[in-house]
Amino acid sequence: MDKTAQNSSLLPAQRPRAIFFDAYGTLFDVYSVGLLAEQFFPGQGQAFSQIWRDKQIEYSRLVTTSNHGQHYQPFWDLTLAGLRYAGLRLKLDLTAEREQQLMNQYRHLSAFPENREVLQALKDRGVVTGILSNGDPSMLDVAVKSAGLGDLLDHVISVDSIRKYKTHPDAYALAEQATGLKASQIGFVSCNSWDALAATWYGYQTFWVNRYQLPFETLGTEPCHTGSNLKDVLSLLAD
Amino acid sequence: MDKTAQNSSLLPAQRPRAIFFDAYGTLFDVYSVGLLAEQFFPGQGQAFSQIWRDKQIEYSRLVTTSNHGQHYQPFWDLTLAGLRYAGLRLKLDLTAEREQQLMNQYRHLSAFPENREVLQALKDRGVVTGILSNGDPSMLDVAVKSAGLGDLLDHVISVDSIRKYKTHPDAYALAEQATGLKASQIGFVSCNSWDALAATWYGYQTFWVNRYQLPFETLGTEPCHTGSNLKDVLSLLAD
Repeated sequence: MDKTAQNSSLLPAQRPRAIFFDAYGTLFDVYSVGLLAEQFFPGQGQAFSQIWRDKQIEYSRLVTTSNHGQHYQPFWDLTLAGLRYAGLRLKLDLTAEREQQLMNQYRHLSAFPENREVLQALKDRGVVTGILSNGDPSMLDVAVKSAGLGDLLDHVISVDSIRKYKTHPDAYALAEQATGLKASQIGFVSCNSWDALAATWYGYQTFWVNRYQLPFETLGTEPCHTGSNLKDVLSLLAD
Repeated sequence: MDKTAQNSSLLPAQRPRAIFFDAYGTLFDVYSVGLLAEQFFPGQGQAFSQIWRDKQIEYSRLVTTSNHGQHYQPFWDLTLAGLRYAGLRLKLDLTAEREQQLMNQYRHLSAFPENREVLQALKDRGVVTGILSNGDPSMLDVAVKSAGLGDLLDHVISVDSIRKYKTHPDAYALAEQATGLKASQIGFVSCNSWDALAATWYGYQTFWVNRYQLPFETLGTEPCHTGSNLKDVLSLLAD
């Protein structure tokens, strides 16, 4: 637990009544595909998985902004598009078989080990739990089941129903709508700094889990709380 | 001139009546700051200027999407924020003096050598010329004057008036509004593949100048024309 998190225990009245988690990068390790990529493309697995991830996120923004969502594609399709771009960018021999294996790996990303413990502790304290994710429903369904988290999540929300990705405010609004709570009563946890930033702008009680010791975005807004591990989120609720 | 460009000469009735250029990356070389960065941070100049550029673009998207532009900041401020992020990300000693020198360099980016020739050729053919840029007006003013392009540009349009960055459709609409022409009558030239993509979605006759032999975005839309140099744009108007 880092210093920021230690200092962030909240008075009971201020504690969030629901806590939503981002999925990709937060509950599920998007870089766990790097090992398979390294097998296929020795020496380039890390660069490949970084470009893949960056393009997937970039595409989610381009389709959301451009022509008011007319060019929306489900997250699975954007993930595949990002994969293909990474192969072209690095001039790799991305055969149809390798492409399929990498996408299959993405469908079954490793879950971070502390997920269950943290979600269980939240449930024990009577906090409503959920996922609010860019992933489409079938991706989330497989990921949640693979990680055995289904019984610990009250809500699994995909932005797919509104065809706009985070960081669009309509996407963040989905957790308010699902719970009937105001944003200020909801905690939002993300390891992605852009997600923690925009959720802070939206009005959530944000918790940025900085797994990789990265700087936060430098736009003049800080997340409400910061930690290095999902367990740090529990400090918000400590007596 | 590459094969695609050679094949793209248009019938007179199809030729664009105006041609707008993206500024940063297209007329002005955003990576020309890399030399100064390399002097300050030996061995890391390229990585630094790449992160700087990527963050600048990412921030333009985040502020445009989030809360409907409530968090808009001028491009100069986003450029500074991107610079600071790059320094933190690479753990560099970015002193206030170095920061100022790098920003000053950004204000006076190198112009690509063929700019004047291409704009002059368009003017000679009676084509309306312009810039449609994310840069704020004072940045564009200095850049255009430094490059001596003022007399060759009928329009210098910044998105700053609408507080939304490309790739928002309202940003692309500005060239239609300035000229009174329809998008289909306007050529739009960019070296940035995301810009060429979104301008194609918007309906412009797009020309992607692929200076660095990169793949195009893999979202299923191709630019109308492709070349490797701004001069290739003239092939659209060749008899």
